[in-house]
Amino acid sequence: MRQPSARVDALRQQLADKSLDAIVISSGSNRRWLTGFTGSAGSVVLGTSTAHLISDSRYYEQVERQAPDFELVRAGYQTNQTLNTLLTALGARRVGFEAEHLSVAQLEGLRKALPDIDWQATDGLVTRLRAIKDADEIAIIRRAVRLADQAMEHAYAIARPGMTELELAWQLEVFLRERGAESLAFDTIVAAGENGALPHHHPSDRPIAAGEPIVIDMGARVDGYCSDLTRTFSIGPATDPDYAAVWQIVSAANRAAEAGLRAGLTGPEGDALARDPITEAGYGDHFGHSLGHGVGLDVHELPRLSQLAGDAPLEPGMVVTVEPGIYLPGRFGVRIEDMVLIGPDGAEVLSGVAREPSLVPSAV
Amino acid sequence: MRQPSARVDALRQQLADKSLDAIVISSGSNRRWLTGFTGSAGSVVLGTSTAHLISDSRYYEQVERQAPDFELVRAGYQTNQTLNTLLTALGARRVGFEAEHLSVAQLEGLRKALPDIDWQATDGLVTRLRAIKDADEIAIIRRAVRLADQAMEHAYAIARPGMTELELAWQLEVFLRERGAESLAFDTIVAAGENGALPHHHPSDRPIAAGEPIVIDMGARVDGYCSDLTRTFSIGPATDPDYAAVWQIVSAANRAAEAGLRAGLTGPEGDALARDPITEAGYGDHFGHSLGHGVGLDVHELPRLSQLAGDAPLEPGMVVTVEPGIYLPGRFGVRIEDMVLIGPDGAEVLSGVAREPSLVPSAV
Repeated sequence: MRQPSARVDALRQQLADKSLDAIVISSGSNRRWLTGFTGSAGSVVLGTSTAHLISDSRYYEQVERQAPDFELVRAGYQTNQTLNTLLTALGARRVGFEAEHLSVAQLEGLRKALPDIDWQATDGLVTRLRAIKDADEIAIIRRAVRLADQAMEHAYAIARPGMTELELAWQLEVFLRERGAESLAFDTIVAAGENGALPHHHPSDRPIAAGEPIVIDMGARVDGYCSDLTRTFSIGPATDPDYAAVWQIVSAANRAAEAGLRAGLTGPEGDALARDPITEAGYGDHFGHSLGHGVGLDVHELPRLSQLAGDAPLEPGMVVTVEPGIYLPGRFGVRIEDMVLIGPDGAEVLSGVAREPSLVPSAV
Repeated sequence: MRQPSARVDALRQQLADKSLDAIVISSGSNRRWLTGFTGSAGSVVLGTSTAHLISDSRYYEQVERQAPDFELVRAGYQTNQTLNTLLTALGARRVGFEAEHLSVAQLEGLRKALPDIDWQATDGLVTRLRAIKDADEIAIIRRAVRLADQAMEHAYAIARPGMTELELAWQLEVFLRERGAESLAFDTIVAAGENGALPHHHPSDRPIAAGEPIVIDMGARVDGYCSDLTRTFSIGPATDPDYAAVWQIVSAANRAAEAGLRAGLTGPEGDALARDPITEAGYGDHFGHSLGHGVGLDVHELPRLSQLAGDAPLEPGMVVTVEPGIYLPGRFGVRIEDMVLIGPDGAEVLSGVAREPSLVPSAV
């Protein structure tokens, strides 16, 4: 991969903008994105013309293989002491740290072990860069999205009245894992009937009945990258008389947002593409979460398609979810979610699995 | 469960010792241990005579059901504002936070939103209390341990030359999950041949050969609590002439530690119970990690059986792993790990699955 060098260049520009001599990056996804190293521990020390990765003996061989653009620094168990030696050798005085990831106790430890460094809190430098995906990342994300599509098709094929939410969730996990997902992107949601009105319901041993709406929200992690997909369907004709109309409102809101998203919109403007038609249909109070979020190495990352997001515009190469929902407490919920790739003039819908309000029960 | 009130009392004693008016607990395992609430977000505010749990709309119903000893505070998205209102109402001025869990950015947010509070860093108050398990916790841990035992028996039954590490790891995960594990306690390690010399190897598509040592390290999570179990075996007679002797040294070191552990020993003293015989056998340089760690809601928690641990004594009710290992780079590794419950005069070995250096290949 040639990406690490472009990523390093982008972060070095941030160092220059903030007059930092170096920055220490210790959070997992940021470290991986910057270096290619997939291990669970290690600190990147990026200077204006240097790139080091401090790790412990578990990972020496792996760092050298995965992060050839970074010079391995062998720390043993002496992480802070090693960091001190390195920053001294680099002549770094004004050094950034990740304020969102470093704990108060960790910063206190750094301040004690490296008293001569002028530690500077930084906020989201790497996560903002990560929001825009390069070609390699988009190719991996397409595979993760396709795998989730296939798993949803599998759900359509195997869902039966009498299965519990947990059984269906587990069958989907087995499907994803046996076809190449290294893990789930997040805990699968299978929420039947009134449980569907809880956006973050955990699957239970509640059996699924014919005719009740089922919300399935799941994703795969492939080569580190996540997918995120939601469909809502009933097995056979729905019993709730309002379900079909609500499903159509949500589906149309999803389509409207997918048709309208493009670079240049702000997060609140993106959110409004789906929220406005839902509000006009009289269900605005029942869409209690934001429209979507970025997806990459983390299943929730920048940007946010939200009324609460700032006015930073969407940019080409961002990958976001579009997931409007309507939740009727005690009755049911409907959420329909795709992933899309933002382009200069529009958005490409990555998710490809069909959406149907109701499945025809199989003869099996 | 009556435990939450005893746990709250223990933490209140810590508040009194440190002259705190209240403490805010936001880390997942600590929050769960203290309240019974299993959701992914929420802040406990424990005062000298008050107990509140601030959460968002996803969890209102769940908090009321799982944490009846705590008064629910409905925060919506206004967590810091709600916290401010609550602490003001309580008249709290000197308030503790968890320095190991709160990020620098989160503390900065609190300081801005609640400028009148005198924030005090605390270090491990709850995690030290959690190290000693009560009867309910021990009963749950026994179930998690038993499930891992059964999965290892399953490994003995299904391991075949030609299976890859990944295939065997996946079969064990399916076994654990289908028998009641809510998740793995950690990513399963299956490390064959020279991979076994890497203590934290990730399973690969490397096929397992007859006669080579295989390290399997796995655990189940049951009702939130973890188990952790390691066995090393070859399928059929081992091909490396030193394997049988190394296996016996590790097994004897494991037995010696299990026989010697008791309340009153320090972490370094516990570690030495297994390290000394390995060193005497000439393999001290090949046992590069500590002997063990506490296990509970987290798979790694206090206490540490380590040369680097302090001199706090082990106490009855602690649950720890005993996992000596010898690692010969480029050749193989051997690790044998049980979980034990520390008592006043000795330790009860919780893990029950047999250990054998080599399996007789099945006729299948």
